[in-house]
Amino acid sequence: MLFLNKYAIGQMDQDVIQKAVKKAYQLVLTQHYNMPDRMHVADQQNTLLLMPCFSEKFFATKLVSVFPEARQHGQPAVNGVMVLSDNVSGQPLAIMDGAAITAQRTGAVGGLAVKFLTPESIQTAGVLGAGVQGLSQARYLLFNRKIKTLYIYDLNQDAAMGMINTLKREFPKIEYMAAKTPKQLVEKSCVIIAATTSKRPLFEASPDFISGKTFISIGSFRPDMQEFPNIVIKRADNVFVDTLFAAKESGDIAIPLMDNVIAKEKIKEFAEVLEQSKIFENKTVFFKSVGMALFDLTTAAAIYQLAVEKNIGQILDF
Amino acid sequence: MLFLNKYAIGQMDQDVIQKAVKKAYQLVLTQHYNMPDRMHVADQQNTLLLMPCFSEKFFATKLVSVFPEARQHGQPAVNGVMVLSDNVSGQPLAIMDGAAITAQRTGAVGGLAVKFLTPESIQTAGVLGAGVQGLSQARYLLFNRKIKTLYIYDLNQDAAMGMINTLKREFPKIEYMAAKTPKQLVEKSCVIIAATTSKRPLFEASPDFISGKTFISIGSFRPDMQEFPNIVIKRADNVFVDTLFAAKESGDIAIPLMDNVIAKEKIKEFAEVLEQSKIFENKTVFFKSVGMALFDLTTAAAIYQLAVEKNIGQILDF
Repeated sequence: MLFLNKYAIGQMDQDVIQKAVKKAYQLVLTQHYNMPDRMHVADQQNTLLLMPCFSEKFFATKLVSVFPEARQHGQPAVNGVMVLSDNVSGQPLAIMDGAAITAQRTGAVGGLAVKFLTPESIQTAGVLGAGVQGLSQARYLLFNRKIKTLYIYDLNQDAAMGMINTLKREFPKIEYMAAKTPKQLVEKSCVIIAATTSKRPLFEASPDFISGKTFISIGSFRPDMQEFPNIVIKRADNVFVDTLFAAKESGDIAIPLMDNVIAKEKIKEFAEVLEQSKIFENKTVFFKSVGMALFDLTTAAAIYQLAVEKNIGQILDF
Repeated sequence: MLFLNKYAIGQMDQDVIQKAVKKAYQLVLTQHYNMPDRMHVADQQNTLLLMPCFSEKFFATKLVSVFPEARQHGQPAVNGVMVLSDNVSGQPLAIMDGAAITAQRTGAVGGLAVKFLTPESIQTAGVLGAGVQGLSQARYLLFNRKIKTLYIYDLNQDAAMGMINTLKREFPKIEYMAAKTPKQLVEKSCVIIAATTSKRPLFEASPDFISGKTFISIGSFRPDMQEFPNIVIKRADNVFVDTLFAAKESGDIAIPLMDNVIAKEKIKEFAEVLEQSKIFENKTVFFKSVGMALFDLTTAAAIYQLAVEKNIGQILDF
């Protein structure tokens, strides 16, 4: 059995991970997987989520705990442990840092949206939210497009500067700008990725600076959270979700539906795009991800196989 | 974070583990715990069980997979991984072999039944079933009582001899006998522990050789499984269960209830016995365990604390 910590997972090839997430979308289309509803356990103010999923060769369970008060004591609020097993023999194969798996696969979800929904020629981009997910989004954005100028915005200016400094080391040729407001970031960028937990839209928009851009919402994972104002989805030529559950789970879809600014029929599954070679030149496009355990499963399986091949990780004597 | 494999867990002090299980019973009485219903996932012919539980200081999730066909390929059908975390900070503390935790805590459940339900003077005992659980039951039986002769029965005679050889090395002073039939074992023993997956009672009994003995049923964990014939529970002066769910989950309680050989009111929670100093001299006693995640939690927590203290286990750089 293998143990892979966040450093081992962080150094994994982005291309391998993005292909693993693409494979998850393909499994959705062919229905070759088994993903039961996640188990949601409340204990005092804390939450434990148990997310099992099965494919033909593997099964995986991600355990995620959310302890809101831990941050006050200098510890991360969200912790995760991923257990990957062989779905033929039943034997456990690997234990992994679940938060690192989440960051990688969520980055790759955004990366695939950038790859398939934005014109290849885009040179400006913006990331709203400079947390772990924002950083991972930026990495996969820069992996997929030759961006000249990247705008970063966070309520906490130090966090934005910290993210810029990290990215400068990894991608030194790019120009980084800390945006003064979310609105400024949207105005300047061809693709806008939001990875926040905002309960209210991050900006007010007039139609003129939305047109022709790609909006990627990664953050809002509850019906009471919304990152983009209704006008974005209203004006969008195409609206995609990573899973149709997004209509229930995320305010970025649920609120526009409730407000009748968009018809349900307009919302399409992103997996369908991967089967076409459609080009979204000069289109306004909206993409919402809420994630699913199947992404974790295919990502963990690909990371495990790569780690075995490259002798990465700590061997456990099970 | 610490990793503890089956060898590390197997070498843990029986007294510490038995006290940890006793603590679980005490938590049941005071209700100082949170144990949601386990999640039960079916995938093809296989099963995955997710068992979370919270106490004041810790929370733990045991993942158990059951792959019936794995045995045909020389691999264990049941695999388990236990994740222990801190319930104040939310941080993961340890990953453990879940099957080893199950074996230890189930042994200790039987051990406590022996300790509190049998006269101190007993010198003969029998274990029906020579699998992993049977071996663990024998170890905790011998830890609690000065047995002179121990009878072992298994359908597979090689398994019975294998268990006798293992026990001989650990407890060399005891006389071991492979019983020819379950009936012979019951006739010769003051306490009878069954750890099988039998769907039909293991023996037919006449009242005369049941009287004054203690019967401990560990195996039957489904309503269609029954280890002891109805007459045992019917004749018993006292009937105890580790949790009241046993009436639904195990045929050893559900079938006698359905057949009207016992009234529901006669079934008592074992936890109550621990609060008294009642002596069951010359009584016929029946005890049924179906287990619960709270046993796993207190056992894992005690093992973790002991492992840290004694520098046992593999340190994981989380």
